[in-house]
Amino acid sequence: MQRVRQRQPQDFDRVLSSMCTKPHPRAHEAAVEFLATNPGDPATYQTVADLEADAIDQLGDIAGLDTAFGYIASGGTEANIQAVHAARNLADGTDTAGSGMPNIVAPTSVHFSVTKAAEMLGVELRTVPVDDDYRADLDAVSAAVDDETQLVIGVAGSTEYGRVDPIPAMTELAHDADANMHVDASWGGFILPFTDYEWSFADAPIDSMAIDPHKFGQAPVPAGGLLARERETVDALAVDTPYLETTSQATLTGTRSGAGVAGAVAAMDELWPAGYRQQYRDQQANADFLAEEFADRGIDVAEPTLPLVTASLSPATFEALRDEEWRIARTADGDLRIVCMPHVRRASLEAFLADLDRVRA
Amino acid sequence: MQRVRQRQPQDFDRVLSSMCTKPHPRAHEAAVEFLATNPGDPATYQTVADLEADAIDQLGDIAGLDTAFGYIASGGTEANIQAVHAARNLADGTDTAGSGMPNIVAPTSVHFSVTKAAEMLGVELRTVPVDDDYRADLDAVSAAVDDETQLVIGVAGSTEYGRVDPIPAMTELAHDADANMHVDASWGGFILPFTDYEWSFADAPIDSMAIDPHKFGQAPVPAGGLLARERETVDALAVDTPYLETTSQATLTGTRSGAGVAGAVAAMDELWPAGYRQQYRDQQANADFLAEEFADRGIDVAEPTLPLVTASLSPATFEALRDEEWRIARTADGDLRIVCMPHVRRASLEAFLADLDRVRA
Repeated sequence: MQRVRQRQPQDFDRVLSSMCTKPHPRAHEAAVEFLATNPGDPATYQTVADLEADAIDQLGDIAGLDTAFGYIASGGTEANIQAVHAARNLADGTDTAGSGMPNIVAPTSVHFSVTKAAEMLGVELRTVPVDDDYRADLDAVSAAVDDETQLVIGVAGSTEYGRVDPIPAMTELAHDADANMHVDASWGGFILPFTDYEWSFADAPIDSMAIDPHKFGQAPVPAGGLLARERETVDALAVDTPYLETTSQATLTGTRSGAGVAGAVAAMDELWPAGYRQQYRDQQANADFLAEEFADRGIDVAEPTLPLVTASLSPATFEALRDEEWRIARTADGDLRIVCMPHVRRASLEAFLADLDRVRA
Repeated sequence: MQRVRQRQPQDFDRVLSSMCTKPHPRAHEAAVEFLATNPGDPATYQTVADLEADAIDQLGDIAGLDTAFGYIASGGTEANIQAVHAARNLADGTDTAGSGMPNIVAPTSVHFSVTKAAEMLGVELRTVPVDDDYRADLDAVSAAVDDETQLVIGVAGSTEYGRVDPIPAMTELAHDADANMHVDASWGGFILPFTDYEWSFADAPIDSMAIDPHKFGQAPVPAGGLLARERETVDALAVDTPYLETTSQATLTGTRSGAGVAGAVAAMDELWPAGYRQQYRDQQANADFLAEEFADRGIDVAEPTLPLVTASLSPATFEALRDEEWRIARTADGDLRIVCMPHVRRASLEAFLADLDRVRA
């Protein structure tokens, strides 16, 4: 324990860069309870399987799917990889593909995990530009999709700007080419139900989605979510077992922690929908406040359409704020990016702004 | 919490089928401590990164590697998939392959995760027979390996019989064909150091290994281990980043729980080597005891060369014991399989034998 004790991580007060958050106390309690149990015990497997079925039903509710298929993954990365994997296997099954290399189409704003998926699975990733508002450009998607396209991916809550791609129109382009449509709502899934965005299974005939309880869902890591409209999408992930008895065979990880699954169920039981609605309102208000404060100071800021604020800041100012122990991150273009997760309080943002004024003075 | 509470899993007393076990109290404590922390916080990432470096060093000690590369994976499944993935990418890089489909060679006793890996990664899995003692048949390995072979996999502690393949000879066959050699010691890695088996990086010039703290290492799930002799093996897993700043880009899962890493370090700090040595002796003695008791009753039993007992039992007897709430499992051939993990006590085995006598009477 010596080395573990010496390395106590910091608290959350100055963490403005993370897409994860402090687990809800009920979720934490449930995870600890299930951490102590035996994940290799068939009785526990049954328990985890039952809890997982609850989690998937609940995620289906959130994402507009009456009968949801899927499983609790280690996170959005695994869910995105498995969506590409399923689409590849389903397309191989139909044998309508030509002789070219199969491809998937996604905007440049897509998460890095999709690059990883394409590399592993032997499909070409065609990334297309985003428009002036950082959303997938439909003309570019249309031009990139062809007969070899197996999957189109839209982002609902992008990593750098919190933007939502035009999901219904992208779905139409995908389906016109006999490709599947996947939505990466890993970060946005637990706040989008309280907005007017069209992002869900109810808003468009999308085929699969990544939606992570361990981000805005306030579950502890590892608790990601892969959802599918059809059972065959999940079945396509299973080797040698066309109809799954358990979802374990569809996962990338095999043995899984009961803690993540139990934590996810406990969080959703506690917070859906009222708690998540309040969280969205509070954090959107925080993001709007922060964006206005930036604008008042003459700092260029992208409109925070979700609780994520991206603004221009000089490298020197950025580093000075890091030296003040603010945990902040930058976009690929060097812009400051602040994610208003549930642990981010107004008082922290005010303290951050005070430090900003001081270091810029 | 309602649904979580209603589904309390059972305790360990009657669990004789699992390859996982109850985490060590120190490991449990460390995992709980790190569960409450923010895995998305860069400060925590640094903490987890430091702890992970400790874990890999410690795993290297156990597996005979002075300078170890690798990372803490979600489990043996991910470690095996990534070993195949790295071998494929390294072979693609050298471009010495012919026009055939690349292949990997493993005994039929290899874990299911390797089938999954081959399917995902687009390589052919050539499974070869085992000999009369359930170990990879060397002539068959030799016959299967060819110019397109990228990886040979040996098992050190097989799932059904706890057998150790002839690792040095398999490594020679692999290297003669310019293929890499991977050892799956997911289950056996924490007991084999106390045996005479040749299984480790010190015993043969193997290239990679799966070795799971969350099995005999007494860490909580998720804590698997991927080890490599060369940095390039891990680097081959990273997309767009030939030299890794952090191992996160080499993982399949992206975001990872600090709990698994902290739990693994705490367990190894506490138990390596004396605690693990005692655990091996106790559980090997339990396995020998059980095997003798089976033999005394005229039941066919395979010699337990590691703490795993496989014996013939009629389906009716098996089911009767399950009805007595014993958590037991069968091999693909229908034999009873009892894994003497650290939580399995002599008194439980005696109670199990008493029930066996009663149901057979």
